[in-house]
Amino acid sequence: MFKNIVIISIVLFCSIGYSQTKQNVKYVFLFIGDGMGLNQIYTTEMYLNAKTGEIKAEKLLMNSFPVSSNMTNYSANSFVTTSCAAATAMSSGFKTNNGIIGKSPDQEIAYENISEKVKKAGLKVGILSSVTIDHATPASFYAHQNSRNMYYEISMELPNYNIDYFGGGGFHSPKGKNGDQPDAYVNAVKKGYTIANSHEEFNKLKHGDEKIIAINPDMYPSGEFYWAIDKKEEALTLADFTKKGIEVMDNDKGFFMMVEGGKIDWACHGNDGVTMIHEVLAFNDAVRVAYEFYKERPDETLIIVTADHETGSLYTGINYEMNPELLKYQKTSVQEFKRKMTELKDANPEVSFDSILDLIQVDFGLGNSEVGLSLDGNELDMLKLAYSKQFKENNKVNADANYLSINTVKSISETAAYILNKKAGISWGSGDHSATPVPVKVIGYGQGEFSEGFDNTDLSKKIQKLMGV
Amino acid sequence: MFKNIVIISIVLFCSIGYSQTKQNVKYVFLFIGDGMGLNQIYTTEMYLNAKTGEIKAEKLLMNSFPVSSNMTNYSANSFVTTSCAAATAMSSGFKTNNGIIGKSPDQEIAYENISEKVKKAGLKVGILSSVTIDHATPASFYAHQNSRNMYYEISMELPNYNIDYFGGGGFHSPKGKNGDQPDAYVNAVKKGYTIANSHEEFNKLKHGDEKIIAINPDMYPSGEFYWAIDKKEEALTLADFTKKGIEVMDNDKGFFMMVEGGKIDWACHGNDGVTMIHEVLAFNDAVRVAYEFYKERPDETLIIVTADHETGSLYTGINYEMNPELLKYQKTSVQEFKRKMTELKDANPEVSFDSILDLIQVDFGLGNSEVGLSLDGNELDMLKLAYSKQFKENNKVNADANYLSINTVKSISETAAYILNKKAGISWGSGDHSATPVPVKVIGYGQGEFSEGFDNTDLSKKIQKLMGV
Repeated sequence: MFKNIVIISIVLFCSIGYSQTKQNVKYVFLFIGDGMGLNQIYTTEMYLNAKTGEIKAEKLLMNSFPVSSNMTNYSANSFVTTSCAAATAMSSGFKTNNGIIGKSPDQEIAYENISEKVKKAGLKVGILSSVTIDHATPASFYAHQNSRNMYYEISMELPNYNIDYFGGGGFHSPKGKNGDQPDAYVNAVKKGYTIANSHEEFNKLKHGDEKIIAINPDMYPSGEFYWAIDKKEEALTLADFTKKGIEVMDNDKGFFMMVEGGKIDWACHGNDGVTMIHEVLAFNDAVRVAYEFYKERPDETLIIVTADHETGSLYTGINYEMNPELLKYQKTSVQEFKRKMTELKDANPEVSFDSILDLIQVDFGLGNSEVGLSLDGNELDMLKLAYSKQFKENNKVNADANYLSINTVKSISETAAYILNKKAGISWGSGDHSATPVPVKVIGYGQGEFSEGFDNTDLSKKIQKLMGV
Repeated sequence: MFKNIVIISIVLFCSIGYSQTKQNVKYVFLFIGDGMGLNQIYTTEMYLNAKTGEIKAEKLLMNSFPVSSNMTNYSANSFVTTSCAAATAMSSGFKTNNGIIGKSPDQEIAYENISEKVKKAGLKVGILSSVTIDHATPASFYAHQNSRNMYYEISMELPNYNIDYFGGGGFHSPKGKNGDQPDAYVNAVKKGYTIANSHEEFNKLKHGDEKIIAINPDMYPSGEFYWAIDKKEEALTLADFTKKGIEVMDNDKGFFMMVEGGKIDWACHGNDGVTMIHEVLAFNDAVRVAYEFYKERPDETLIIVTADHETGSLYTGINYEMNPELLKYQKTSVQEFKRKMTELKDANPEVSFDSILDLIQVDFGLGNSEVGLSLDGNELDMLKLAYSKQFKENNKVNADANYLSINTVKSISETAAYILNKKAGISWGSGDHSATPVPVKVIGYGQGEFSEGFDNTDLSKKIQKLMGV
């Protein structure tokens, strides 16, 4: 008799163990902060806490998740990846060369991605981004193209997979490079998609709607969101699109949702620290929406927050100090301040350096000795040089460039950001990507699978295993 | 009857669960790579794998551990910590100001550290370092002093806590700053310590020996190990001291062993990438010794590998490339090459630039176009400038300085390392510490406790909880 009890006990014990690891997770959120390395996240956390006057008080939501690991991200042809190679690895489990979307390095094999597998299994799929939805990262979750620059081809391929919900930015070149191709939006509609690109249409989207392309009505004409730091009150946020995605796709079989914070990378390419911080905060707000959903269904939901790569080789601390509280005095993005400068020059080419200094103080705090931001001789010289180049030597600055290359001549705006970042203890090593592993923050069913250090190809395999697809 | 079976089953299940979380871990290894940030570890891994001609093949042992998380490390008075404030947090669970060892920021309270608690509980304690054993990190695991620079006071305090085994480097200033104080080694012997500082004495140390100070017989006169890259065949390694520590301290009640790779930080202060890599490898070898021990007793052993802070703001990747395979052509540390240059100048002040270039090629590979290390005009100019300053302008370089400050004039040696690092895709933002969170790699009983992102004060609390002290 005792033998029987023991046997039944063991069976019961084993079956509990088995069911705990074998149940599939229903709802998976994969948040990708493009360019968001460890220092991007922790600088944002320091910024938040510095406002309270303490060294550190509160964790950023994503940093409070119970699993916090790291992921390597080299591509098939370089230790330093680009977004498409990294996103292809995360979506398919296979490496490819920098530049390629969803295909093998020789461009012969189209990799099957997680969206296709999840759709096959009968669950829903949503793909969201704050930049254009045919940009490298989101594209790698549905398309297969030889180059990330084939925006038009990507947008034409987009409606072929019955993805349930696209949300965020629009198409990069809906009529092709020269504007003479059949419209990609029309193509999507022909294939059964509904495009919602007004507040009214967005608000009307409801539970059970299928094949949706929801586009932010308030954004740059080039198809990506305004910088979070410059955002107009009425513009929709990545959090809004995440919330709507849940509303639209919620179903008993489950869903996979990829949400990209695409402009973190752009701010880092431009070495604009404060703008980067506001992008990370907007991204973290989108994570919070998923977290609220998770709290209702903790046994069925998994949230992973990670990045494709780090951008800008951001590093922190100068002479054993950081003053992140100074960053709050920057009120606009570098790009927006550039636009203001160009507008000013067009209106009055004779504007004085002193007037410019006043404007710099308004938008960057620089020159305000009361808040610890007085400018020394060197810094004034740097600004004056930028002013001369921009206003006197007719050295045209591309005010609309959203990639703010540090390799070109510094504008007044970039110089001001550089000075403010340095005073706060933030430095940038480059305007490119780096080879550093990226952070991974996880909460939910199956979180234990992510506690080791792993490669970006493993990320896809782990998610597929947990979803049973 | 069925009811009884179920009840017994549940009791059995619960008791298994209970015993798994409530047993104390007996053997804890805390490895601290001083200055070892995420990029230090992964550059080392890339270096190892680059030798095979693949992008990536094999994980560094510490990177293969099942838990890989991150730890914040700000001090009580700065986002950028120093070693003593970080090590005090890790040893006591309390923050202090930069500069202080084992005491509160106001220097009024001596924090009780984990070594004291472990000794109270009847387990053994070992403290090991590749730099002097009274240096900031090891000192924070036994001493309480107002300043890390009070080396003499620290070495005099060392024998007061019945720590079972000190291993590695010697004392920094055993007779005080001016060499006129009572000898700290004599003081230790008076208090019952045995000092083993020859190979013979080291080999004689055996299981059960107590109150040991084991010092490397082959090291710099200043009391720290030779650089791993320059190591003499016969010199003992951190791995040797770890192995001996296990042999000496192994006992049924258990032990706590802190092992510091102290010169990783020193190489990073000097921006000497290859020397840093060899220090990380030597540190990883010491981790391997603990790992072999763990494999014999996986249910009783816990290994944690982490850092106090990152040093040098190391970043990787230039123009989307890395060439870590080039790093293998550096054959000596920057410090050793500096020593050679000084020796050469003393012997022959008229030595030509071309002869110097030949020596640079031998020790750094630079100028060898066959391995992809030809020098361009700019790089030759940089080296020529350094040569002029060092050989022609009588600009004395301190060849014995182990902290290789990048703020002073660049020697030929530092310039060569700078050029080689850049060619390999390795860059340094500073010669100081940064504010980035540090990696944590864990294997063994209780590993799950470390999977979240946590603060360095939590590290001590987690270990104490798991050890039940």
